[in-house]
Amino acid sequence: MTDDRKTIAFVVYPGMTPLDMVGPLTVLEGMASTAQEYRTVVVGETKAPIVTDNPLKLVATHTYDEIPAPYALLVPGGGTPTLKALADEKLIGYLRTAAANAELVTSVCTGSLLLGQAGLLEGRRATTHWMFRELLRTFGAEPVAERWVEDGDLITAAGVSAGIDLALHLVERLVGTEIARTIQFVIEYDPEPPLGALDWSQRPYGDLKPLLEHSLNEALVDEPALRDKLLAHTG
Amino acid sequence: MTDDRKTIAFVVYPGMTPLDMVGPLTVLEGMASTAQEYRTVVVGETKAPIVTDNPLKLVATHTYDEIPAPYALLVPGGGTPTLKALADEKLIGYLRTAAANAELVTSVCTGSLLLGQAGLLEGRRATTHWMFRELLRTFGAEPVAERWVEDGDLITAAGVSAGIDLALHLVERLVGTEIARTIQFVIEYDPEPPLGALDWSQRPYGDLKPLLEHSLNEALVDEPALRDKLLAHTG
Repeated sequence: MTDDRKTIAFVVYPGMTPLDMVGPLTVLEGMASTAQEYRTVVVGETKAPIVTDNPLKLVATHTYDEIPAPYALLVPGGGTPTLKALADEKLIGYLRTAAANAELVTSVCTGSLLLGQAGLLEGRRATTHWMFRELLRTFGAEPVAERWVEDGDLITAAGVSAGIDLALHLVERLVGTEIARTIQFVIEYDPEPPLGALDWSQRPYGDLKPLLEHSLNEALVDEPALRDKLLAHTG
Repeated sequence: MTDDRKTIAFVVYPGMTPLDMVGPLTVLEGMASTAQEYRTVVVGETKAPIVTDNPLKLVATHTYDEIPAPYALLVPGGGTPTLKALADEKLIGYLRTAAANAELVTSVCTGSLLLGQAGLLEGRRATTHWMFRELLRTFGAEPVAERWVEDGDLITAAGVSAGIDLALHLVERLVGTEIARTIQFVIEYDPEPPLGALDWSQRPYGDLKPLLEHSLNEALVDEPALRDKLLAHTG
């Protein structure tokens, strides 16, 4: 059975941060329910429940093999498990082949590092979670401190919650402002952070270098070459 | 094996909107990783994958029976499936008994209607998704148009994405401003909606009454008494 719709594939892998994916999925599924030439799918190595970085487990709708050539790709991030996933050859291989024919390649948070490992960021402007931004240089990317960064068919978002903003922007780009506005109302996205916007002068954790080193050493103990390549860009 | 931690229980049920739960879960799991007297769990009728209102399926960590007396309860919402869940006696029964001993009872979006059906909103100030707000009167609640509404041990949030704001407020209330701020940085919650804040003069869908009637008729076709009670409050 063929499906002529444009497939937006959300990739899942063990230890990822669910909000990175669930925010954009909610927005883009809202788009697909109106603009029916689109559909969303959740793609994983298998359809068994996968663990995340919180107690929730997620279940994919399709395997990599079943979605070889999506219209668009969204890759979520996470912490140490996402660094570990840099050495997941099946995942990285899927991203490489799926991206080759995709019209749009997108990521949220450290998902962009996975795109980098797949060779998709060479010479491109990109962003990621603020704590990991310098690591983008490992992959030949130019790190940009913006909420989302659009470089042609590559759109990368900052940390976790930035995926919602990226997805609303995508809806605008694909089907226009009216549908984007309606979805914003449907998800009642009218943020009121109790402590206000981020005040970067109050940034926690101080020097990031030892934190990144700890995380890279933990994640990539069995991949010293890759680890050392990343360690050269811990700021 | 006993667990002395304070358990924050996120309830899942078929057809719910995942973002309602995943936003707050991310924030409160962040709290639990620092303030280790807390833990988060995902509670469902079973541990089988449950469908949601998008292609993603979710898996609970515990059944209702396993978490009879949580410290705090968070109930997510959704559209027509959540209205249908008003007639789910196991779910409503669980909410009633779990809330009876809880220190905090919270909801996101139309999750507050489920709390209402469990008899927990009588005479209380509460909110829900803007499209469903008048339905709160069915349960003796006073509808309030705010991002989140705190009435003692009852805290209800507006639609979908409002759960992130509610959860950050909860962290502040439970463990203070510093941890709340750190979590806000970790999830990089510095929203930039591409179209700006919601402009209510551009609200979609016009008259909500026919929409709500359609949804209630579809959801509660087998529960005419409950349906008619709600239909009396469609604005």
